[in-house]
Amino acid sequence: MTLLKPEEYFQSIQRDLNLYMFGEKIDKFWEHPIIIPTINSTKMSYELAQIPEYQDLMTAQSHLTGEIINRFCHIHQSTDDLIKSVQMQRLMGQHTGCCFARCPGFDAANALYSVTFDIDKKYGTNYHERFKNYWIEVQQKDMTCSGTMTDPKGNRSKRPSEQSDTDLFLHKVDEYDDGMVVRGAKIHQTGFLNSHRALVMPTLSMRPGDEEFTISFGIDTDHKDLTLVYGRQSCDTRKMEEDKIDVGNFKYGMHEIFVIFDDVFIPNEHIFMNGEIEFSREIVERFAGFHRQSYGGCKSGVGDTLIGASALASQQLGVEKASHIKDKLAEMIHLNETLYCCGIACSALGFQREAGNYEIDMLRANVTKLNVTRHPYAMTRLAEDIAGGIICTLPSVKDLKSEEVGSLLKKYLCTCDDLSLEDRYKVLRYIENLTMGLTGVSFKGESLHGAGSPQAQKIMINRRAKLEEKIGFIKKILDIE
Amino acid sequence: MTLLKPEEYFQSIQRDLNLYMFGEKIDKFWEHPIIIPTINSTKMSYELAQIPEYQDLMTAQSHLTGEIINRFCHIHQSTDDLIKSVQMQRLMGQHTGCCFARCPGFDAANALYSVTFDIDKKYGTNYHERFKNYWIEVQQKDMTCSGTMTDPKGNRSKRPSEQSDTDLFLHKVDEYDDGMVVRGAKIHQTGFLNSHRALVMPTLSMRPGDEEFTISFGIDTDHKDLTLVYGRQSCDTRKMEEDKIDVGNFKYGMHEIFVIFDDVFIPNEHIFMNGEIEFSREIVERFAGFHRQSYGGCKSGVGDTLIGASALASQQLGVEKASHIKDKLAEMIHLNETLYCCGIACSALGFQREAGNYEIDMLRANVTKLNVTRHPYAMTRLAEDIAGGIICTLPSVKDLKSEEVGSLLKKYLCTCDDLSLEDRYKVLRYIENLTMGLTGVSFKGESLHGAGSPQAQKIMINRRAKLEEKIGFIKKILDIE
Amino acid sequence: MTLLKPEEYFQSIQRDLNLYMFGEKIDKFWEHPIIIPTINSTKMSYELAQIPEYQDLMTAQSHLTGEIINRFCHIHQSTDDLIKSVQMQRLMGQHTGCCFARCPGFDAANALYSVTFDIDKKYGTNYHERFKNYWIEVQQKDMTCSGTMTDPKGNRSKRPSEQSDTDLFLHKVDEYDDGMVVRGAKIHQTGFLNSHRALVMPTLSMRPGDEEFTISFGIDTDHKDLTLVYGRQSCDTRKMEEDKIDVGNFKYGMHEIFVIFDDVFIPNEHIFMNGEIEFSREIVERFAGFHRQSYGGCKSGVGDTLIGASALASQQLGVEKASHIKDKLAEMIHLNETLYCCGIACSALGFQREAGNYEIDMLRANVTKLNVTRHPYAMTRLAEDIAGGIICTLPSVKDLKSEEVGSLLKKYLCTCDDLSLEDRYKVLRYIENLTMGLTGVSFKGESLHGAGSPQAQKIMINRRAKLEEKIGFIKKILDIE
Amino acid sequence: MTLLKPEEYFQSIQRDLNLYMFGEKIDKFWEHPIIIPTINSTKMSYELAQIPEYQDLMTAQSHLTGEIINRFCHIHQSTDDLIKSVQMQRLMGQHTGCCFARCPGFDAANALYSVTFDIDKKYGTNYHERFKNYWIEVQQKDMTCSGTMTDPKGNRSKRPSEQSDTDLFLHKVDEYDDGMVVRGAKIHQTGFLNSHRALVMPTLSMRPGDEEFTISFGIDTDHKDLTLVYGRQSCDTRKMEEDKIDVGNFKYGMHEIFVIFDDVFIPNEHIFMNGEIEFSREIVERFAGFHRQSYGGCKSGVGDTLIGASALASQQLGVEKASHIKDKLAEMIHLNETLYCCGIACSALGFQREAGNYEIDMLRANVTKLNVTRHPYAMTRLAEDIAGGIICTLPSVKDLKSEEVGSLLKKYLCTCDDLSLEDRYKVLRYIENLTMGLTGVSFKGESLHGAGSPQAQKIMINRRAKLEEKIGFIKKILDIE
Repeated sequence: MTLLKPEEYFQSIQRDLNLYMFGEKIDKFWEHPIIIPTINSTKMSYELAQIPEYQDLMTAQSHLTGEIINRFCHIHQSTDDLIKSVQMQRLMGQHTGCCFARCPGFDAANALYSVTFDIDKKYGTNYHERFKNYWIEVQQKDMTCSGTMTDPKGNRSKRPSEQSDTDLFLHKVDEYDDGMVVRGAKIHQTGFLNSHRALVMPTLSMRPGDEEFTISFGIDTDHKDLTLVYGRQSCDTRKMEEDKIDVGNFKYGMHEIFVIFDDVFIPNEHIFMNGEIEFSREIVERFAGFHRQSYGGCKSGVGDTLIGASALASQQLGVEKASHIKDKLAEMIHLNETLYCCGIACSALGFQREAGNYEIDMLRANVTKLNVTRHPYAMTRLAEDIAGGIICTLPSVKDLKSEEVGSLLKKYLCTCDDLSLEDRYKVLRYIENLTMGLTGVSFKGESLHGAGSPQAQKIMINRRAKLEEKIGFIKKILDIE
Repeated sequence: MTLLKPEEYFQSIQRDLNLYMFGEKIDKFWEHPIIIPTINSTKMSYELAQIPEYQDLMTAQSHLTGEIINRFCHIHQSTDDLIKSVQMQRLMGQHTGCCFARCPGFDAANALYSVTFDIDKKYGTNYHERFKNYWIEVQQKDMTCSGTMTDPKGNRSKRPSEQSDTDLFLHKVDEYDDGMVVRGAKIHQTGFLNSHRALVMPTLSMRPGDEEFTISFGIDTDHKDLTLVYGRQSCDTRKMEEDKIDVGNFKYGMHEIFVIFDDVFIPNEHIFMNGEIEFSREIVERFAGFHRQSYGGCKSGVGDTLIGASALASQQLGVEKASHIKDKLAEMIHLNETLYCCGIACSALGFQREAGNYEIDMLRANVTKLNVTRHPYAMTRLAEDIAGGIICTLPSVKDLKSEEVGSLLKKYLCTCDDLSLEDRYKVLRYIENLTMGLTGVSFKGESLHGAGSPQAQKIMINRRAKLEEKIGFIKKILDIE
Repeated sequence: MTLLKPEEYFQSIQRDLNLYMFGEKIDKFWEHPIIIPTINSTKMSYELAQIPEYQDLMTAQSHLTGEIINRFCHIHQSTDDLIKSVQMQRLMGQHTGCCFARCPGFDAANALYSVTFDIDKKYGTNYHERFKNYWIEVQQKDMTCSGTMTDPKGNRSKRPSEQSDTDLFLHKVDEYDDGMVVRGAKIHQTGFLNSHRALVMPTLSMRPGDEEFTISFGIDTDHKDLTLVYGRQSCDTRKMEEDKIDVGNFKYGMHEIFVIFDDVFIPNEHIFMNGEIEFSREIVERFAGFHRQSYGGCKSGVGDTLIGASALASQQLGVEKASHIKDKLAEMIHLNETLYCCGIACSALGFQREAGNYEIDMLRANVTKLNVTRHPYAMTRLAEDIAGGIICTLPSVKDLKSEEVGSLLKKYLCTCDDLSLEDRYKVLRYIENLTMGLTGVSFKGESLHGAGSPQAQKIMINRRAKLEEKIGFIKKILDIE
Repeated sequence: MTLLKPEEYFQSIQRDLNLYMFGEKIDKFWEHPIIIPTINSTKMSYELAQIPEYQDLMTAQSHLTGEIINRFCHIHQSTDDLIKSVQMQRLMGQHTGCCFARCPGFDAANALYSVTFDIDKKYGTNYHERFKNYWIEVQQKDMTCSGTMTDPKGNRSKRPSEQSDTDLFLHKVDEYDDGMVVRGAKIHQTGFLNSHRALVMPTLSMRPGDEEFTISFGIDTDHKDLTLVYGRQSCDTRKMEEDKIDVGNFKYGMHEIFVIFDDVFIPNEHIFMNGEIEFSREIVERFAGFHRQSYGGCKSGVGDTLIGASALASQQLGVEKASHIKDKLAEMIHLNETLYCCGIACSALGFQREAGNYEIDMLRANVTKLNVTRHPYAMTRLAEDIAGGIICTLPSVKDLKSEEVGSLLKKYLCTCDDLSLEDRYKVLRYIENLTMGLTGVSFKGESLHGAGSPQAQKIMINRRAKLEEKIGFIKKILDIE
């Protein structure tokens, strides 16, 4: 059996990392209150895989080994696999109410699987075999992987080789018979601490002269030459307070890591691309494509919890039957399901690569993501509208529980006789958290920029839309030659 | 072979109808310039079915007879059938640039197939067998059918039986051993003239006391006791002008008929429901569900032609590389593909009814339609933006071709040296037509109200969204009992 | 008294024009059923000026002659004048339900008044005096003037002098002691037939080398060397039908003329600019500025009639108390009043030019117009939603009045017992007309492109926004040097 | 001289309060790091009033005493005063980047000024004289006042007297010859600590039977029988960290207080309403009207800083010339100026009350606010788009300044050679702060709910829109009787 138990997973990530937060080195990060909820989120992918009712979504049979594996380690073998991937991620979002960060490595693996095949075909290299071996190990150990793409990029108006400091794009600084040495950084690394391995890829489409930047490889996240710095999130330190209710989503969360590669040696067997510039664009597009599909699942799952919380808040106020409340809930559901529909559609319209694996429809994956950059913003505004101004002015839960003012708050915040005021607090803090706080970072900021900013999707949409075909339709209708 | 050739279809609809337009009886409607383009649209479904490259989409194997039939006559046997139905309709939209009106009967048949089965199961009636026999004939003769639902409804704040004139809802006025007599009207009947038969259904969810209004049946559209009145459309009479260019989409179009049932006798073998009030809602919802799915296909097909026309117009002006033009085209494509994605998703997520046929996911079909009520409006505004003010001020094509001012217009409307001014006229008129004219009626008005107005979708979205399940997710995350 | 009576105005425009429509020369255009409603609209500015209750808005005291004149001939002397100008135009929109086209000359005069002053100051020319004399005559004869700006422009990616045919921008082709000869065309000329004179201006900001295109002058609209071609509008020929109800807004409308200048001699005393390239941008911006302000008034006036019609339609259906209807009406009102607010604000924030007259705040005038390019589209969609699908499928009024089917239509279109079906027809046709038909051209197309397309406003907004000042605020708050 | 110096103001608010935060009593609140920035914001109204260049906006001549006073203490005497009030508030927003909370009392006073006059006129009471005396003192001492309206309201589906605990609406519990005793609470009290006095008003339109809830009065904010609880805000505790850069807007902010009235005695001379139920609606509407106008000023001022920060962030990335960046900035400016335009318009369209003071146009004040509930959300999303994902993943400033990782962060976050990384941090944190953090509470949450939630504006818009007049226009155009 290749499925790790949740507790086994938790044990497996307890390793030494060069991790810094608030200017200090963090030992035993898995005991840090700011980090624990983020581990819980990833761990949920191990928990749900143990529950029989969810196993159709959460697990799959490996085409490499024939074993039953966590679907997050699977290479898609059909459009049905692609659809289930979206459904699995919605399920995960519904159970965590936030990002769980097991998709980046999943998406990277599915991209590398076919790109390595294509490179080999052209150049006679053996990246594909290497990658399969690397990935079989991931499947067998039920590892979580990071998909590691975004470079700091320095001045955005300059190419990698034009930067005053070329380290601003991760690059090869030395090469040996048995491997290479790389230097640079990768930023916005979601869930890096929770990941056993990272699949590193170039950040943009490279051109001749950019060979040193055109590298892809696997690396263990606890490699001694990596330095990690923890990204701040809105309201992060609430998790260090005694009473957790003010956190909002007090069980789950996610982190983003600034990862610095300080002359790291990568052995050949972990290198999956090395200078083949024309394939850099393929990696970027395929990874981004899968990742944009993923957002149709995970974000609609989180959206479900926001809709649920808003509905609950309206009940707690006694306004659940007001027509404008029902209209706002319907609008939230509509927007949320539109995200999901796009994720499902780009999966159902998927196709088989020559390598044998299945890939999403690229145009619709970008349409999915462009909607994801918009609808969570509209949904959170509606949630704030339903919840009322109180989510901005609620005193701390310490006040609620204090001797001096606790009873006054309880008296004056009561809305329905049989309501637990603590429950009302929880719901309000949850909505605050998703709209302005910790998980707002993943529901809004990540929705906007993760897997590429809106402009990146617009470029892809223009590129993939087959405008000439459409012009052809109109010419035919109008008898224009 | 059960596929009619286009010309055979055209012959088959040449029959006498009690049709009125502009206050006069219309004989040989198939020769009327206002009506011809609407026949062309439906006929396209016969043309494309003859083209080998499209037969995978345009045809299917009947599960009733084993024969190859036009897909518009098919009862869906899988989610793949559902997906292909959306793709076929997009193809049709791309080739006609407008509504083609072969879906209403298609959608009605797929709804009646399972509802008749369900009624029989409860009441021991034999509607299902009747319906199958009726439909086998449709398949074998490759008929086009209308799906006939909307009653005039009178005062919207009153129930059918409360209306001062109960004829405002089609109802049974007499019953005999061998059939019944019905009276009333059905409005907004798209493509009725092009249809051989009509599947008549109740217009809303009936309640006890509404038995007489709870009827469904098949009828030939040339029944002598039907009176038909042709609906006016914006710019309809341009089709009667000598030069067709000002029409815009001069080959294709669609019509809407006001159908009056003046004591029409319906024989038993064509009756599919008769007073089973609790199933009226099932018919309405299932038909509307399929029909809302359909819009994800046909409207995105029409959208393709609008995008193509806009891109062509920008080339004709020499501005196709301006970044704001590319941004607007990307936005149009994004909106259009969102419609398609929703149509595909509600199909891919379909399920099997007890009757054996496949039905779309109801929630997402409604999400599809709610997007359809919005995005065509945004797309047409963008098209008008790209095309420029000239679509509102262009002189008539008669001026362009006149001796006196033709050369002046040609001189001053020239934008690029090698441009045919007639082609520029065609493109501008096409955009005018889709945004303000004849086919704007189907691309906007029908998108808004066809298959139910936005409020109807919001009600269904609220009803199908499983709010309690979402509240359950949030309670679990927050440890609320 | 300098105010023309409506009938006097109507007499005054009955003059010979080289006008073509549908390829034929039109004599006595004022008797043409397509044109009459457009005259009615302009004539309304004479009618309302006669009504005491409106005289505060409709008239003003000329600062040039001291006489009471129609406000459309006034040079703004205060911010109060600017505000009243917007209010007058809202009033006009409320009474005509469409464009009335007396603002272009009004706005052009207010621009030329100060620009001629500024040119004179720099070059010692005497354009300002010329213009004042020209304009005093306009005031004293209560003339309607056109503001004539848009050239055909040929290939949009090329400058005037780079066009393969330089006539694509109106230019001076000869110069004499007593005047000059011009050739070219001006398109989209709203209300040209109803105007006695036209103030011609350059269409864009000219550069060195463009001197021949940098010309401004006044001209009588019945000049023998002008050729006029009438622009088609959606549903234009409905006005030629016997029964007017299908027209929708059967009393009022507007036209757009394609005006060709075929070697026209302009005497010196009517020339207001001749080669002063650096002032071309000033004319364009100031005229566009006033014209963008105007739209805040006229379009919100038309919006009022659309809101009124929608409210009436909802009453006719018996749904006026449904919460979703009330919500849609509130949204329409909100959008409409936002337009008006912007028009009022750019007026209240106006400033005095050195020439003595008052000008609007340029940034907010552009904000006004950018909202105008959006909100009418949203409003018409809401109106179509409220009115129902019937606006797309209603049979012709000839059917309603026919012997054969008239009584059937009356029976089945009845919604409320005491409702005149003819009134229902009128309201539905009015909404159809504003959303898809004749006046949709002015409420949507003109709102989008008139006084410059959205991109033009965005450029002006960026240019006028004082970004550096805003960066200064943030630097001060953050102690950034 | 009646203008307090900033330092004098700061001294004047150093008084004992029964204030609780995080469950503990706060002594010397003016020294608390969480509270200090909020005092700075209000203090800015005293600072700017000292600067000659701003005195036209920041000060006015009292019509009560003839003295020069801070405009925030002024009773509007003209539409020019109303306009300047909006402009003053924009100026304040530009200098603080957040709410400054001196408008609630300003707006309340202008409402009470006319309502007390109207009550007196009907009932012969002497509230107006009382209020004038009370307010002269405010003017002379240059006090800041709170406008205190929102009750906890309990179950929203029940009236005040139907609540199981009637204290959920502030009410009179005892009455004496010289005054009355009140009990209840007021929530969301913005800037309460910075205010010397509070003007208390009923929270909704009262009905017969609600007399005890229909009370208005003035009270000193340090009254011993008030208990105050401090509302939590997103990221509040960052202000307690050593390095302030992570705060974002580290100088300015605002607070919201939960105020409990525990049997407070109010002397007659401070009572401005006592049971006159039909005037409760007047107070609510007039106060809300002024307050909705105010938002057109303050929020556009804050918007200016967000636009400035976004523009600066784009320069720091080297992308300020990208067309999609310029488009997004233009859109932000457009939305921001629309808010301002509405605020200006409802002022310019103001009218004089019988009491002599000027009031805003109510319809447009509501339109202003409804736009305010939307545009800041759109603007912040655009700012997040421009700023990039880094605002969600930036490590703490402690990391930036740490020995171990500081130099690495500096190396890898560098974008332009001459950029101070600390400045980049400041700008990014500022945007984070306004979109997700502390001042997001005022720029979004308060924009949504302050001065009434969107639904309240929709109701007012419907009520004030004169629908019948609009129906009249359409009937006149269509000859409908």
